[in-house]
Amino acid sequence: MNDRMSDRINETHDPRLRSWVSSANAPDQDFPIQNLPLGLFRPAGRAIEYRGGAAIGDQVLDLKAACERGVFAGPAREAALLAAGSSLRDLMAAGPAAAAALRRALSGLLREGAAQQPTLESALVPRSAIELALPAQIGDYTDFYTSIHHATAVGRLFRPDHPLLPNYRWLPVGYHGRSSSIAVSGQQFARPIGQRPPAAPGGQPSVGASERLDYELELGVFIGAGNVLGERIGIDAADGHIFGLCLLNDWSARDLQAWEYQPLGPFLGKNFATTISPWVVSLEALEPFRTEWVRAADDVQPLPYLDSASVRRSGAIDIQLEAWIETAAMRAAGEAPTRLSRSSFRHAYWNLAQMLAHHTINGCNLRPGDLLGTGTQSGPEAAEAGSLLELSRGGKHPVSLPDGEQRRFLEDGDEIILRGHCHRQGAVRIGFGEARGRVLPAAI
Amino acid sequence: MNDRMSDRINETHDPRLRSWVSSANAPDQDFPIQNLPLGLFRPAGRAIEYRGGAAIGDQVLDLKAACERGVFAGPAREAALLAAGSSLRDLMAAGPAAAAALRRALSGLLREGAAQQPTLESALVPRSAIELALPAQIGDYTDFYTSIHHATAVGRLFRPDHPLLPNYRWLPVGYHGRSSSIAVSGQQFARPIGQRPPAAPGGQPSVGASERLDYELELGVFIGAGNVLGERIGIDAADGHIFGLCLLNDWSARDLQAWEYQPLGPFLGKNFATTISPWVVSLEALEPFRTEWVRAADDVQPLPYLDSASVRRSGAIDIQLEAWIETAAMRAAGEAPTRLSRSSFRHAYWNLAQMLAHHTINGCNLRPGDLLGTGTQSGPEAAEAGSLLELSRGGKHPVSLPDGEQRRFLEDGDEIILRGHCHRQGAVRIGFGEARGRVLPAAI
Repeated sequence: MNDRMSDRINETHDPRLRSWVSSANAPDQDFPIQNLPLGLFRPAGRAIEYRGGAAIGDQVLDLKAACERGVFAGPAREAALLAAGSSLRDLMAAGPAAAAALRRALSGLLREGAAQQPTLESALVPRSAIELALPAQIGDYTDFYTSIHHATAVGRLFRPDHPLLPNYRWLPVGYHGRSSSIAVSGQQFARPIGQRPPAAPGGQPSVGASERLDYELELGVFIGAGNVLGERIGIDAADGHIFGLCLLNDWSARDLQAWEYQPLGPFLGKNFATTISPWVVSLEALEPFRTEWVRAADDVQPLPYLDSASVRRSGAIDIQLEAWIETAAMRAAGEAPTRLSRSSFRHAYWNLAQMLAHHTINGCNLRPGDLLGTGTQSGPEAAEAGSLLELSRGGKHPVSLPDGEQRRFLEDGDEIILRGHCHRQGAVRIGFGEARGRVLPAAI
Repeated sequence: MNDRMSDRINETHDPRLRSWVSSANAPDQDFPIQNLPLGLFRPAGRAIEYRGGAAIGDQVLDLKAACERGVFAGPAREAALLAAGSSLRDLMAAGPAAAAALRRALSGLLREGAAQQPTLESALVPRSAIELALPAQIGDYTDFYTSIHHATAVGRLFRPDHPLLPNYRWLPVGYHGRSSSIAVSGQQFARPIGQRPPAAPGGQPSVGASERLDYELELGVFIGAGNVLGERIGIDAADGHIFGLCLLNDWSARDLQAWEYQPLGPFLGKNFATTISPWVVSLEALEPFRTEWVRAADDVQPLPYLDSASVRRSGAIDIQLEAWIETAAMRAAGEAPTRLSRSSFRHAYWNLAQMLAHHTINGCNLRPGDLLGTGTQSGPEAAEAGSLLELSRGGKHPVSLPDGEQRRFLEDGDEIILRGHCHRQGAVRIGFGEARGRVLPAAI
């Protein structure tokens, strides 16, 4: 941890903090009092409005109920009221000071010895007894391509001679995705149907269910305060426009995509489903896990609008990412999911601040609740690949699962579970929960 | 007009109809009583909520005021109430029967001799005294590429040997665009800044204002009733999901786009601004201008999910489209805008029903208020090109304007005006109004 980072470390990060919600003090779980991610939930099976909540251990603090109990004051009260409604959008729009005030208040209210414990115990709901929704209506969804290892591995399948295109090292490549088909963990979707490439050049495409369905292990970034159309977000101001991060599975039908994507990019190969984890982890909670962002001296150096001393000092975040699979056979046999791969966001060639600075260099406006994807986070090692396309090297080398099954691509009934967490000596481990999604048979 | 089309022609299309709003009876104007497009407006300079209105001649009928006067009954009243609020989204969501009921009622209320004339005169507002807004909050915006003449002309600039990619004749190529930067006619925007391609392969890109800024002459399609994620819209059901059409200028920075677009498609080259006309012309109003959709016998024939006898009979619509320019010099000299080109939507290689059937073949959900672009509508003749890129053949052959100016691409101060209308022997001409937008100097 360097000087600048320690400026941003405050009492909410104190590793000695413990919560009166005892499950939050267990080791190796995702939601200690140092995390306090926000989401939108309601008690399971009750057709009432969703409302904001903070995950703490195996519980959720109902922010509407907490507001009604009068436990907040000042800016934290304003922020809690914004989060107590049926969307986190208004809190996102209020900017980082509001979110920080709420975090600080929650940290005080939930820590051991807090006078408000008796008042707040009835505002807790077990996480096992809730339903979750998207934190906000997502306006625009942009997906980036920030892992050079992923870009190179995928590029090699299409262009063995020059896997990485000339623009890659100069700009964070991004494109617009579909917001209507984004859902939280638990999403199930039918295998998409579409045009699959002709067997030989000049031939006729076939129409049918995708035979090369894949997952992509990504992070999602919720925009907080937006920018006005025509105004740029400078690289050093970028963090102030980020509300927080989640896990994101950018399901991809490789065969549909390969046939359709020239010259205007992915479309039906991607827009049938995208699954995110429901709990948004704030940048503030991630501060202890920031690390240097390095561009090798013999590599292309970022252009000025994508560069800054402070971003180089702490622009990377060491978020451990994992993809797990539970096949139908494993589920039937009562076997636990098995891990396909793990990587870290610290390997990303482009960081969060660069994504925002680039996105707005032309004046494009970001709005509260907009979502950015980081692109598949593959690490430098082959085993750190964030998709089956890479793990199976284009479907040529099947991946073996512990129960004897093999996977080139996803089969019907497969459930993919993305997980993420941060840990470091001297800090309390925080996690992202899960983004879980299942492939159903095609609806022919 | 063939049999199927005449099934859809009703009393609202009767060319003999005249309105008591006398300006609606003038020839060669856009909004006769046979048109009745809807938009969202408020009296200029008053900070009150926008509300739905129907354009009639040089007036707007305020639907909120009309509802308050009790002139609607039954399904038309329900529909008018949906359109009287601060968005047309709810009317869009209600589907084609609701919109048709409102159209039929408006046609009756506004025609010569209507008993409600004295009641409704005070619900009219001159169009010269209003401000307009987007008809609905646009969720997702998808842009297609349906003109084979445009795709071929642009492809030739990049790939002289094989301008048209192998997928073009098999599927309506589309990609996701940016909804946050879409605005109605009157939009002004700063010339976008970004990375321009290196002067030579392997060189360094430069950062600065786009030097190849262009317009694109398109139609926009507002989705009405949506589809559930996972359910397809069959080609013969597609029309029932379209609320109506408008003009759309897909402003494009060719230099930014050329450098960034591989391999994931256009991004900053497009997402700084998109301008649409504010009045949404219903498919019902366009019925008299439907025409055969022809795929030449020696061409690739559409796959079954993109084909239907009824769509072949009447899937094309003869909408005349025009792009005009008013430069700063012309404005200063008091000269009228000059036309750059004209074309017709009837030349599109893919039609509206095919766009929707393809978009949803994989289960992707469309939502009320979503917007589709048709892609640049260039006709078969060089003079029918829908962009400067094509008119100037990649910037190599400047276009001469009547006042002696020349244009390879757009200059600061240039205003582009898109216009559209339909006319046919035996029908009353209907028009789309304008999509007008102006380029301001880059904000360095």
